[in-house]
Amino acid sequence: MQDISLGLYFLSELVGTAMLLLLGGGVVANVILAKSKGNGGGTLMINWGWGLAVFAGVLVSAYSGAQLNPAVSLGLLIAGKISGVQFLIAVSAQLIGAFIGAVLCWLAYKQHFDEEPDPANKLGVFSTGPAIRSYGWNLITEIIGTFVLVFVIFAFADYGDVQIGVPGALGPLSAVPVALLVVGIGASLGGPTGYAINPARDLGPRIAHAVLPIKGKGSSDWSYAWVPVVGPLIGGALAAFAAPVMLHLITLAG
Amino acid sequence: MQDISLGLYFLSELVGTAMLLLLGGGVVANVILAKSKGNGGGTLMINWGWGLAVFAGVLVSAYSGAQLNPAVSLGLLIAGKISGVQFLIAVSAQLIGAFIGAVLCWLAYKQHFDEEPDPANKLGVFSTGPAIRSYGWNLITEIIGTFVLVFVIFAFADYGDVQIGVPGALGPLSAVPVALLVVGIGASLGGPTGYAINPARDLGPRIAHAVLPIKGKGSSDWSYAWVPVVGPLIGGALAAFAAPVMLHLITLAG
Amino acid sequence: MQDISLGLYFLSELVGTAMLLLLGGGVVANVILAKSKGNGGGTLMINWGWGLAVFAGVLVSAYSGAQLNPAVSLGLLIAGKISGVQFLIAVSAQLIGAFIGAVLCWLAYKQHFDEEPDPANKLGVFSTGPAIRSYGWNLITEIIGTFVLVFVIFAFADYGDVQIGVPGALGPLSAVPVALLVVGIGASLGGPTGYAINPARDLGPRIAHAVLPIKGKGSSDWSYAWVPVVGPLIGGALAAFAAPVMLHLITLAG
Amino acid sequence: MQDISLGLYFLSELVGTAMLLLLGGGVVANVILAKSKGNGGGTLMINWGWGLAVFAGVLVSAYSGAQLNPAVSLGLLIAGKISGVQFLIAVSAQLIGAFIGAVLCWLAYKQHFDEEPDPANKLGVFSTGPAIRSYGWNLITEIIGTFVLVFVIFAFADYGDVQIGVPGALGPLSAVPVALLVVGIGASLGGPTGYAINPARDLGPRIAHAVLPIKGKGSSDWSYAWVPVVGPLIGGALAAFAAPVMLHLITLAG
Repeated sequence: MQDISLGLYFLSELVGTAMLLLLGGGVVANVILAKSKGNGGGTLMINWGWGLAVFAGVLVSAYSGAQLNPAVSLGLLIAGKISGVQFLIAVSAQLIGAFIGAVLCWLAYKQHFDEEPDPANKLGVFSTGPAIRSYGWNLITEIIGTFVLVFVIFAFADYGDVQIGVPGALGPLSAVPVALLVVGIGASLGGPTGYAINPARDLGPRIAHAVLPIKGKGSSDWSYAWVPVVGPLIGGALAAFAAPVMLHLITLAG
Repeated sequence: MQDISLGLYFLSELVGTAMLLLLGGGVVANVILAKSKGNGGGTLMINWGWGLAVFAGVLVSAYSGAQLNPAVSLGLLIAGKISGVQFLIAVSAQLIGAFIGAVLCWLAYKQHFDEEPDPANKLGVFSTGPAIRSYGWNLITEIIGTFVLVFVIFAFADYGDVQIGVPGALGPLSAVPVALLVVGIGASLGGPTGYAINPARDLGPRIAHAVLPIKGKGSSDWSYAWVPVVGPLIGGALAAFAAPVMLHLITLAG
Repeated sequence: MQDISLGLYFLSELVGTAMLLLLGGGVVANVILAKSKGNGGGTLMINWGWGLAVFAGVLVSAYSGAQLNPAVSLGLLIAGKISGVQFLIAVSAQLIGAFIGAVLCWLAYKQHFDEEPDPANKLGVFSTGPAIRSYGWNLITEIIGTFVLVFVIFAFADYGDVQIGVPGALGPLSAVPVALLVVGIGASLGGPTGYAINPARDLGPRIAHAVLPIKGKGSSDWSYAWVPVVGPLIGGALAAFAAPVMLHLITLAG
Repeated sequence: MQDISLGLYFLSELVGTAMLLLLGGGVVANVILAKSKGNGGGTLMINWGWGLAVFAGVLVSAYSGAQLNPAVSLGLLIAGKISGVQFLIAVSAQLIGAFIGAVLCWLAYKQHFDEEPDPANKLGVFSTGPAIRSYGWNLITEIIGTFVLVFVIFAFADYGDVQIGVPGALGPLSAVPVALLVVGIGASLGGPTGYAINPARDLGPRIAHAVLPIKGKGSSDWSYAWVPVVGPLIGGALAAFAAPVMLHLITLAG
């Protein structure tokens, strides 16, 4: 690994995750908030919006390998690609970035938050919630979804000269497959829990929801908040343990 | 062909096909099962979901050339790109992988299966069925769809340095065209039979449907089960016989 | 230009255009015919279906430069990239290929044609028709749409080492931009006439509609048939005359 | 910077922006005007249509770096990548091109404009308007959206050998990420104001709306016209000031 600046590393993760949440929260706001032009735009629109939010986030955080997700960072830590210090810096930056992105999203849709009558829709722009509440099953869904995310990223990020966790590794060419992967996970595994598959993506905005002066907001649903944190971390860790077998395959095949 | 490990070859096909069915079954579950967030998401969402399921599956099975489909494997056997032993290993792995993927999909959507009142919708997440039952015409539709799949894959998989059936041949760059092709076949030829175009994709999950303790499930519709097995195999074989002419064209043009 | 076989050249255009019409007609059948699983899938699904039909068609007709469209061939003739003999061979192959593709599409959706009560929907799978009939304005829309198609293709097909009209020029990498362009033209300029933008795409299937024993079919609407032939030819010719200025720009910039 | 012809530079921006507005206005016309085949096609279709309009526009304006947007040009001016003269030429060409594109769009949809009863829908094809009118908040939304556009473009346009503002810099490979980015911004940040994120895209067509003899047209809503001009310019300038930090990151990482 090259010598890197931890300050730039922090900034890179922060900016990328802020971009992710601004656009990711934005598409939900567009589809569900009152009087928005995209109101009723449908699930596929939300899937594309989140996928392209990842796309934009990856493009602006190449320096830190565009992790943008504590579950990915945990996988990289387990795989020995980043250090414990780098892990902590990345996760801190992701949480702060996600908070900032959620605030910017709220500003962009300020009037639509004001006009929206349903507090659940307001929270839905910030954080995920289950279609049918059952912590055990919700956890399983988040574990499976995040496993797919991290396992597949580890597979293609080792192709050719692309490496994750090394500064500058993820450029525009890998932004496209990551984006498509996230569209696919959302379409396929988003039904039960709204696919957090990223602890920062859920927790940072939930904190923003709790502290922002959102008109007519309801509960931040803290009782559910641990599921989209713990589930993705388990899924990412499992993928990191499973990946070496596949990486071995892919390296042999390369 | 390089020296390859048949164990890794088996594992590669198994993991890729499990990924295919987890995500492919998942998007159907998301769109049709009760209370899912994607309920009513529409046909185009299903088409994208299946295309991106192939995308993810291809990315994690590079070692074995990402066949993921007995119809493709049969084409490769006829084209002399894999041996009879490799064919049998690949097809076994695909069936087992498809079974595993279907089980994981059921776990991810467990509660939505429990809440879904219509047994036909439950089976629809696992296996295909005809819009209008008529074994002859259903067979023709599956033959045509699979012919397109294998014929076009054979065309672009021989461009440049990309080769199918050779370990490590299909990387991220060919995952995108395969995915787009499957989105297109689904949108264009999926209307009459729900486009199995892959015997393992249909049979493995049908077995899973038969053996899993799915709440309130109905028949596994075994009377139709031969159509999405035989049709794709015929289509794949026809494409393999037709392809040399086109491959000849493409090789000349290369 | 390399020495080429006119027989393979003919075959390449025929196969590519058959693929185009099988998948292009198919997505319309899926969305509009009775009892099809994609019934009501919407305009965006049709746009993607046609774009990906072009994608598949381009992938299997590299030998002839994947013209697939008399308007493109006319542009290439005017631009001096193909000879008069090549033009005639290509257009003949395109018409025959479009006819064959339409027949295959009818076979794939045979039962849905039988069950569809509205003759206009049956014709709509084969050929285009105006939303508001007015030959002059319909012609203008087709001219504009085809101008965009040929003008933009000429622009990017001259980038780098990609050249149109030269055997083997269009590989998977240019299939993606062509497909996206056709999705875009359909979404943006398809509203008034259903975007034939290709005389073979409209005329070949219209002949198929006239001669096939389609149950309960109505008129083939021959009075409109000249519009999607003449309009695209004018649009393609205009683009060929306009393109050298832009090509000059692009070549200078290269 | 190479020696360039300012006449070709002007022409390149004009043609690219005309293409952008023809296709961008077109998809709105298709979705909202009476009797159009795409009527009711939905927000995601509009997002894809605009993204692919950018795609086509970029492909035909490589000579001038495919700026197509005064906010991008202002960013390039601030970043020192183009001169003041080039800025003025580009912006003039963009405004004239946008006017021409809007006129062509009107011609392509002439009959549907004639049949459309609602004057607001007619204006909506040409220019943007707020979902909830509030100049301050509308301005903030446009600033945020354009910041994302220019900031992300600056990030990936400096990868590898791709450079913006240098003749011939943006070829087909960068047309795809720009297009995806615009689809994403539209899906995520288009809800409140319809995402002008480009002064020329809004002002040129608004002038066209004012001067064209559109049957039954209403007001051109000049009171709002400054928002989609000033907002994007502020957003583009902010991105240009913020980008060096990120560019520094990306350059180091390259």
